[in-house]
Amino acid sequence: MAEKRVNKVVLAYSGGLDTSIILKWLQTTYGCEVVTFTADLGQGEELEPARKKAELLGIKPENIFIEDLRDEFVRDYVFPMFRANAQYEGLYLLGTSIARPLIAKKQIEIAEKVGADAVAHGATGKGNDQVRFELGYYALKPDVTVIAPWREWDLRSREQLIAFAEAHQIPIAKDKRGEAPFSVDANLLHASSEGKVLEDPSLEVPDYVYSRTNDPESAPDKPTVIRIEFLKGDPVAIDGKKMGPADLLAKLNELGRINGIGRLDLVENRFVGMKSRGMYETPGGTILHLAHRGIESITLDRGAAHLKDELMPKYAELIYNGFWFSPEREMLQALIDKSQEFVTGEVTLKLYKGGVHLIGRQSPYTLYDQDLVTFEEGAVAYDHRDAAGFIKLNALRLRTLAQRKKKLGL
Amino acid sequence: MAEKRVNKVVLAYSGGLDTSIILKWLQTTYGCEVVTFTADLGQGEELEPARKKAELLGIKPENIFIEDLRDEFVRDYVFPMFRANAQYEGLYLLGTSIARPLIAKKQIEIAEKVGADAVAHGATGKGNDQVRFELGYYALKPDVTVIAPWREWDLRSREQLIAFAEAHQIPIAKDKRGEAPFSVDANLLHASSEGKVLEDPSLEVPDYVYSRTNDPESAPDKPTVIRIEFLKGDPVAIDGKKMGPADLLAKLNELGRINGIGRLDLVENRFVGMKSRGMYETPGGTILHLAHRGIESITLDRGAAHLKDELMPKYAELIYNGFWFSPEREMLQALIDKSQEFVTGEVTLKLYKGGVHLIGRQSPYTLYDQDLVTFEEGAVAYDHRDAAGFIKLNALRLRTLAQRKKKLGL
Amino acid sequence: MAEKRVNKVVLAYSGGLDTSIILKWLQTTYGCEVVTFTADLGQGEELEPARKKAELLGIKPENIFIEDLRDEFVRDYVFPMFRANAQYEGLYLLGTSIARPLIAKKQIEIAEKVGADAVAHGATGKGNDQVRFELGYYALKPDVTVIAPWREWDLRSREQLIAFAEAHQIPIAKDKRGEAPFSVDANLLHASSEGKVLEDPSLEVPDYVYSRTNDPESAPDKPTVIRIEFLKGDPVAIDGKKMGPADLLAKLNELGRINGIGRLDLVENRFVGMKSRGMYETPGGTILHLAHRGIESITLDRGAAHLKDELMPKYAELIYNGFWFSPEREMLQALIDKSQEFVTGEVTLKLYKGGVHLIGRQSPYTLYDQDLVTFEEGAVAYDHRDAAGFIKLNALRLRTLAQRKKKLGL
Amino acid sequence: MAEKRVNKVVLAYSGGLDTSIILKWLQTTYGCEVVTFTADLGQGEELEPARKKAELLGIKPENIFIEDLRDEFVRDYVFPMFRANAQYEGLYLLGTSIARPLIAKKQIEIAEKVGADAVAHGATGKGNDQVRFELGYYALKPDVTVIAPWREWDLRSREQLIAFAEAHQIPIAKDKRGEAPFSVDANLLHASSEGKVLEDPSLEVPDYVYSRTNDPESAPDKPTVIRIEFLKGDPVAIDGKKMGPADLLAKLNELGRINGIGRLDLVENRFVGMKSRGMYETPGGTILHLAHRGIESITLDRGAAHLKDELMPKYAELIYNGFWFSPEREMLQALIDKSQEFVTGEVTLKLYKGGVHLIGRQSPYTLYDQDLVTFEEGAVAYDHRDAAGFIKLNALRLRTLAQRKKKLGL
Repeated sequence: MAEKRVNKVVLAYSGGLDTSIILKWLQTTYGCEVVTFTADLGQGEELEPARKKAELLGIKPENIFIEDLRDEFVRDYVFPMFRANAQYEGLYLLGTSIARPLIAKKQIEIAEKVGADAVAHGATGKGNDQVRFELGYYALKPDVTVIAPWREWDLRSREQLIAFAEAHQIPIAKDKRGEAPFSVDANLLHASSEGKVLEDPSLEVPDYVYSRTNDPESAPDKPTVIRIEFLKGDPVAIDGKKMGPADLLAKLNELGRINGIGRLDLVENRFVGMKSRGMYETPGGTILHLAHRGIESITLDRGAAHLKDELMPKYAELIYNGFWFSPEREMLQALIDKSQEFVTGEVTLKLYKGGVHLIGRQSPYTLYDQDLVTFEEGAVAYDHRDAAGFIKLNALRLRTLAQRKKKLGL
Repeated sequence: MAEKRVNKVVLAYSGGLDTSIILKWLQTTYGCEVVTFTADLGQGEELEPARKKAELLGIKPENIFIEDLRDEFVRDYVFPMFRANAQYEGLYLLGTSIARPLIAKKQIEIAEKVGADAVAHGATGKGNDQVRFELGYYALKPDVTVIAPWREWDLRSREQLIAFAEAHQIPIAKDKRGEAPFSVDANLLHASSEGKVLEDPSLEVPDYVYSRTNDPESAPDKPTVIRIEFLKGDPVAIDGKKMGPADLLAKLNELGRINGIGRLDLVENRFVGMKSRGMYETPGGTILHLAHRGIESITLDRGAAHLKDELMPKYAELIYNGFWFSPEREMLQALIDKSQEFVTGEVTLKLYKGGVHLIGRQSPYTLYDQDLVTFEEGAVAYDHRDAAGFIKLNALRLRTLAQRKKKLGL
Repeated sequence: MAEKRVNKVVLAYSGGLDTSIILKWLQTTYGCEVVTFTADLGQGEELEPARKKAELLGIKPENIFIEDLRDEFVRDYVFPMFRANAQYEGLYLLGTSIARPLIAKKQIEIAEKVGADAVAHGATGKGNDQVRFELGYYALKPDVTVIAPWREWDLRSREQLIAFAEAHQIPIAKDKRGEAPFSVDANLLHASSEGKVLEDPSLEVPDYVYSRTNDPESAPDKPTVIRIEFLKGDPVAIDGKKMGPADLLAKLNELGRINGIGRLDLVENRFVGMKSRGMYETPGGTILHLAHRGIESITLDRGAAHLKDELMPKYAELIYNGFWFSPEREMLQALIDKSQEFVTGEVTLKLYKGGVHLIGRQSPYTLYDQDLVTFEEGAVAYDHRDAAGFIKLNALRLRTLAQRKKKLGL
Repeated sequence: MAEKRVNKVVLAYSGGLDTSIILKWLQTTYGCEVVTFTADLGQGEELEPARKKAELLGIKPENIFIEDLRDEFVRDYVFPMFRANAQYEGLYLLGTSIARPLIAKKQIEIAEKVGADAVAHGATGKGNDQVRFELGYYALKPDVTVIAPWREWDLRSREQLIAFAEAHQIPIAKDKRGEAPFSVDANLLHASSEGKVLEDPSLEVPDYVYSRTNDPESAPDKPTVIRIEFLKGDPVAIDGKKMGPADLLAKLNELGRINGIGRLDLVENRFVGMKSRGMYETPGGTILHLAHRGIESITLDRGAAHLKDELMPKYAELIYNGFWFSPEREMLQALIDKSQEFVTGEVTLKLYKGGVHLIGRQSPYTLYDQDLVTFEEGAVAYDHRDAAGFIKLNALRLRTLAQRKKKLGL
């Protein structure tokens, strides 16, 4: 039975079995009009079958929304996040987390357009994605009704789901009858898997779980060398060829895929309170992360760089926890973006059997002044004797502490 | 001419040409008794030749101090730092920085023992090491006189140094007559190089600069799989074999060396204000860093882990800048050590052609509770419906903000 | 109807009308044995009436626990928190927040002793206290059942509560029949009020809401001057008289009360997501806070002090949000406590009509070395010329940035 | 003898004895043309006498620059800093620190205009001001020559200074012959004093040191109630009267002066490494600080507010240390300014005998929603049952930790 009354709901719809079941469940449980939204974020699936499926399930053509969001996704979400060098818990490049706010935003936009009073998603009740979707919904439309079927329905097992599907004439692909050995999320930035065969963190992830990268051991024996150009903190060209955001990331993914780059086996701390083990593949993102650090290393001042580093864990946590549309994330973004004005130039990287190795960087805005480091005096003079005073004053408080200790006989 | 009067000086003496010149320069400039201190920190050089050389240069036997500090170095400096997952500027494992405080401490101990009023080191006036040595000296003996010959003397070129050496009967190895193509620092944790051939950051580091690692491309075609055991945050065994701190790190270095692990080409920001380009090899440390993160991932609580991550950049900066013996480093260490009580267990890693891949972790103290992640209820129950309330309250302030926007028509 | 089965519940019981209603409601709803726990945290009420009341309501004598926790409260909760100079949102001294964990801890201890499987508290469903109590319970006894009557029952108005009380023979004081014009929380550290007459934040708090302090305008016309002695960060004596923790804080409260000190009218952000307006009176705590900063100012090193200041907001937030028994609070406490070793000495304060003015401080461990600041050379020499080098190196990166700008014609 | 060659120097010139001596010393020591810059920052002195004095000392009229900077100072320096609620070491409102960058900037602008190659200031070699001036100079004109006479000359005593003045026909006011009992800095934000009679931090500051405030004890017996209006984080009106930045701050100073507000007796940690004791009077700033916190309390979201609070100590430290013109200060400013969009509204304050008491606040953009806090449901619904889920998930990791402890028998 429905917990709330709704008239029209915008469902994040993939066209797969699970969201098709949700679609039907919404219709039968809430008796409401269902609007489907299917987005291309680079997950690597055709969108037209989703339209067919929705029509088959009785959705009116004007209620079917399909959109290619790849450029918007990369330009307005992925790149801003990479300006921050964001890594959750030191390692995870936030590939799933960063896609959710955009989907939420589009659902709300459609809800406003079609006059829907509710939105729904297919995330489960134990994960982070429910939080990310719903914080996005509420931040953009505070009076929206949120339906999270996995938290509401009483379908408790695969069998029950299949039975529901059969009872409602939802087509079931053969390989979907049994339980999947792991669940997958994918977009242009990454693919991730979790569950079942991955649940014992002491056991290696089986090779068949990976879908986006070669095993490093079967990657080419010759390294690939590439050059990435940056403009104000964002990549704009590979090997001299200018590309749009989505094309550029796709190209990096391809280069990473071949060379077995970007696999991550991680036990992470979910916002909802438990640890989980996931497998991530972020081939292009892994290259981009190191490339961005590389161009920053010569164009960013120390004070700016260290401030960014200190704030990065908090920024990453906010995105992981679903607070993209929060004042504090926007404040941090303002701080980060402010730092990127001169993060322009080129880095050279060697990709080899799972590794990304930065081998060169240059920029018209470089702060690395060779004259300063050699013994000849550079444009900005460095006098060795200044170092003595610098050290003496930095030491002053430590000497005072030591004097106290001495006086006390400690 | 000497800037200050000193009676007896303890010199950090390697036995090489440069510190031998310093030794003689101290004698002739300050007219003072010179005490030499030569330490084995795992730099890979014999110590006895340093004794011979010192004797040859007129140092009295009782003024020659030679000590094997490898275990103390790893146990009391390297391991505590690795408990923090410290990386300077996101990447550098602080191999040079962490050795300086120990050398400084030993020089001061010797100074107290022999009644010396001064200490001297061979670091140049443009680098970080002068700061690290001297902050250490002053923090431990506030009234000590510090002599930094490279900042004081008027030997301005390689030729002048060689001339000084010849004038004072200092033996000169043939390959030391010309200027070295790069300078090297080494200890059990790492080797680093900088200067000359490395000064153009757009050019790849030549392979001959590396001394501790195979080129990943020539590393074995089969991966090496190892298990590392941790006890309260520190590694204690490899593949089931218990080892002391120095032996364990040496073993990891060997495993890393073979598999081409731990090379880093970095442009970093020095404390003294300029950027410099360095090449680091930290084979064992690179493995250890990821292994430690791995064992923490299942044994450390989220609140503890995130607090550590947020403070890590500051902690790393303190060590990089030479503030090991400062109250704030000690306070952070107390915080970090407090977190490591249950960081005990074992991780499995695959080493392959420059890459370290964590493939498993287990612990008697694991907080990863498989029951919590599967749909069955675990020992600590998780109710899906709780997630709804959790999200609603987390969203409350975002909804209030959105209401304000709406009310304002924004 | 009861949501869960419980056999025995330990209730935080004040003896007042509300918790008496809860007591009876627990008996009738859960059909369980009720154990009452009444603590003296300095709220200023007799405890014996609570025993009488409990007996009257049918609680067996062996199920009535009454404890004087004043010294434990101040020594193990208030003082450690004041070592951190904790203020939530820049102003609030956390008087309510800090009492909750101790009550929770005692309830759990009693539950373990009497074999109770549940605990209950009288905090409402919109406040922070429910969170603080329950996080404490769960952190100390993970399998405990928590009953929060205000979130469970269907007593929706004052009339219904009174009707329930009458129906169950609970004595009702005359002035408790109507709704209170504001609600109060009190302990040895503070009294706070919120609700009803305080709800419009544009209106001044009526004077009758204050119970612990004179109106500054009616406070004495002559200031009171006092001296507070500290030992390792904690106050130990006033005007030369040694006192235990609770007595000392009580004495400061008295001094503050007379002089109208420690009133705070605040709109704060609750953990549960909304803003609320509260009135706080923390007479002794306000004095103590400034006194502690004063003794730290001469005994704490800059590096230590600034690290503490940077972490204070997070520490305060943890306590406010109820995470006293969390690893991250304990880690921060370890860091803070580490800093207090030499925070020993004496401060002199002037109390006058609502204000606390620090007018002097001295310590055998002072780091304020008068010789350093005057022109004569002190024990730790300061050479003016060192300042030039210090500035030059600190300026180096700024000059490099300026050179870049110049080169770019910006 | 001059350390460097300079042709023309821009001197920060007050017209007082000390900077007049410096003026003459620059002429005689460097043989260079001296350009004087005298600014009105609200220090409370006439500027025309400085012109006369400069002319008398032989400065050409076109080399005398006098400027009223009061509005620029308050609008572009004081107000941005107060948006951050900046307090150094928890208490100091940075009145001296914030004036230095503006003076430095103007000196550099004049240097560019008149083609000067050097700048000079009258700050001593033991204080922070030399750092603040010089970091400003270098950040804006990297190739400038900086002359700091107090670090360079050999005038070692008051007698020598007076002798130098007499030898060079510099007029000496009678009361300037002897050494001042303390030194003073003043501008529109504050007055500060340090040195001599203030050097013993155990002794109360004598009343005659204060120049900007009444002693609270002699302040009026009736409180003054005022309303301050804010627009996007900055104050724009008092008691309904719109005022420009300088006039508004002057008005607050007057209100504060009368009511004895803003005295601070502080031992602080200087950037150059030692502790010093200072006396500050910041009457208007003290009112403004609390007023700004008050308007933020109802208009700023919790996430934004807490982020600001966490970063405030670092921001304040940057300003104290002289890094106003640094990328990291500008990044933090971008973050802070981003938060102030809706910090608009009005606060009511009571000023009384040294105290500032916030008694009311209101805003068209208030986030304080009375409906949320009362038991009726507000525009954004709050369901008590949500709190249960919120607490359960927040407790999950704590329960898991407790389970581990239990399992281990700890």
